[in-house]
Order: sequence, then C-alpha cells, then structure tokens
Amino acid sequence: MTKHFFSALQGRRSYYALSKEALIDDQRIEELVGEAVKQMPSPFNSQSGRVVILLGQRHDRFWDIVKEQLQAIVPAESFQITEDKINDSFKCGYGTILYYEDLSVVEGLQQKFPAYLDKFPLWSNQSSGMLQFAIWTALELEGYGASLQHYNPVIDAAVRAEWDLPADWSLIAQMPFGKPAAQPKPKEFQPLSARIKLFK
Amino acid sequence: MTKHFFSALQGRRSYYALSKEALIDDQRIEELVGEAVKQMPSPFNSQSGRVVILLGQRHDRFWDIVKEQLQAIVPAESFQITEDKINDSFKCGYGTILYYEDLSVVEGLQQKFPAYLDKFPLWSNQSSGMLQFAIWTALELEGYGASLQHYNPVIDAAVRAEWDLPADWSLIAQMPFGKPAAQPKPKEFQPLSARIKLFK
Repeated sequence: MTKHFFSALQGRRSYYALSKEALIDDQRIEELVGEAVKQMPSPFNSQSGRVVILLGQRHDRFWDIVKEQLQAIVPAESFQITEDKINDSFKCGYGTILYYEDLSVVEGLQQKFPAYLDKFPLWSNQSSGMLQFAIWTALELEGYGASLQHYNPVIDAAVRAEWDLPADWSLIAQMPFGKPAAQPKPKEFQPLSARIKLFK
Repeated sequence: MTKHFFSALQGRRSYYALSKEALIDDQRIEELVGEAVKQMPSPFNSQSGRVVILLGQRHDRFWDIVKEQLQAIVPAESFQITEDKINDSFKCGYGTILYYEDLSVVEGLQQKFPAYLDKFPLWSNQSSGMLQFAIWTALELEGYGASLQHYNPVIDAAVRAEWDLPADWSLIAQMPFGKPAAQPKPKEFQPLSARIKLFK
C-alpha cells in the first residue's frame, strides 16, 4: 500500500500544458473532491476548508475574470504576456478548483481558544495545503494534470460576485486542471541530507 | 490506484494511544520521510521544508524537554494534567517527527520576488501542511498511528539547543507516532453540501 502511495506522490507534478478533453465524468470529479474534503484533518476537527469546482464554460469564465482583473492593474505593455500565459495554459484545461478557508470558522476557534489566537490562521493554511495536495494527487491519479496558482487577492471580489460565494470564504489558491498535453520537465532536488536530520 | 489513495486518506487518523513497539526498521522510517520530503511541492520549487526524526531515547528526551519547558510556564496546579497527557500518550510512542521550515529560504524568496512578500510565509505553511500530511499518511500505511501537536514556540529554543539545529529552522509542528494501542473514535463530518460548490 505504501508503494502505491509513493507512486501517487511521485506522479503529482505541475502540469502547464493542458487540453479540455474530459477523462472522467463530472460526477466522479465531485466525488473525488468530496472525499478529499471529508478526510482532511483540521485543528479541533473544525473543517474550515471550502472548495468551488468550476467545469467547462464556468472554468473558461473564471479565467476570463482573472484576465479582466489583471488587466486593470498590470501595465499595458506587460499584459500581453499575462494574457498569453492564461490563454495558452490554464484556460486550455477542463476545470479549475478554487480553495477557500471559511474565516468564520477560524475566528470561532480564536474566540473559543484565545491562547492559540495567532496560531489558528497558520493552522488553517496548513490544513488548506493538505487539501490542495490531496485533490492535486487524486486528479493526477485519474489522468489529469494540474498546477497551483495564486491570483488571490486580486480576483477575490469579482469571483465572489460571479458565483455569489459567502463573504467569509477567503480564497487561498486556484488549481486549473486538464488532460496533459505535454509532460513536465524533470524536477531538481536538493540533497536530502541538508533537509533531514535523524537522531536515535 | 485512486482507490488505494483514498483508502490511505481514510486510514489517516489522530492516534493518541501509542506503544513503543517497532513495526518497521528505522532505516525504513528514514526512507519514507525522505521520499515525502523529496516529492512535496513548494513555491518556485524552493524546498523550504525541513524534518528532524527522533527515535527511541531521543524521542523520550524530546518529550521530557516539552515537560520541562511547560512546567516553567504552566500554573503548578494544572501541570499534573499536562504531564499525565504527555506521559500517557505522546511519550508512549516510538518516535517523533519535527516539522520545520527554513526561514532563510522563505526570506530569500521574499527578496527575489517582493511582489509576493506577504504570500511566501503563507505558502510555506501550506507546503509544510502537505509534508505533514504525506508523512502522517505514510506512517499510517506502515501500521503506525500518529497525531499532530503544536508545542512551538514554547519548546523551540530548548529543542534547537539539544540537537544543535540551525537558527533559521522554524518549528511548525510535532508528530509523535507509535504502534496504536487503541483505535480512534469515529470522526464527525459536516455535510459536504455546506463545504463544496460545483458550477458547470
């Protein structure tokens, strides 16, 4: 079983060359996301993670919103590069997963356990990282390629308005995915001896 | 393959009743931790995650340090509860994984990409969460039970001094593990309909 798990970890890479071809039913995507959301740990089992799944035309609309919001703040002479990057990569995918944390849950923990006031936002981020990783890996196992993008907070208000999302949901990351159109380059690794110490 | 992955996610729980019986070779623990550290994603492939593995007597020494540091700040009348919790649970395990982030790496990113100055510490926490989750799950797959504890920053200086750890390593979490001596209680789940929205 550990062999399968590490095979999954090794397969999870950042894919930027995507196509819109569906590899599994939309219902299956929802099941995978649901199971990951359900099983992820969170401080005091607070379950603060939230996810928005955008597929097909909604995915396309999302990336148009990103371009609109960036165009308003990026200098005109460099916007073409931004636009091309989105059109040629992320928007070519089949869907996008948006990762949120419900700040009302985090603030509730801070009020209930004031000794950890400054810790709860960090733990919320760590818990979100776990969820991002689990869904990324699950999509990879189903044949999709994905990557993690961070256009928050520039896009937050427009995205919230478009899909009428709760005001307490705080956007953490965006994960476009699709059928891989090219394989990622080999990854470079630092020596583990500089990163791990064992004492026994 | 996805079936195996979700089986692993479901099996990963918080285990508090532990015993010291070794289930696998220490070398295997080091391999599992090494593979997880290697494969985890990080912003700009910065690989900021660091891990300290404490086994056997070093694990015992770690929890004695935690008790010493807590005794200095916890009111005397409530220290007994703290001490019993550590002696009857975490210290009963076989080992402890300490999760660090190398702040010199995070600060290097902040200097190189000042536009994301405020983001890098959050991404570092998210990346650490991914690593915590991967090792937690791998230990579970090998038969160990683990949980995630947060005695930082109270213990940071004493632990750094004991094992001569780099000053730039910032302690994020502690994960005691051992052979499960009892199974966790069933977990309560919020309805997924309140946590996930799908638009297509």
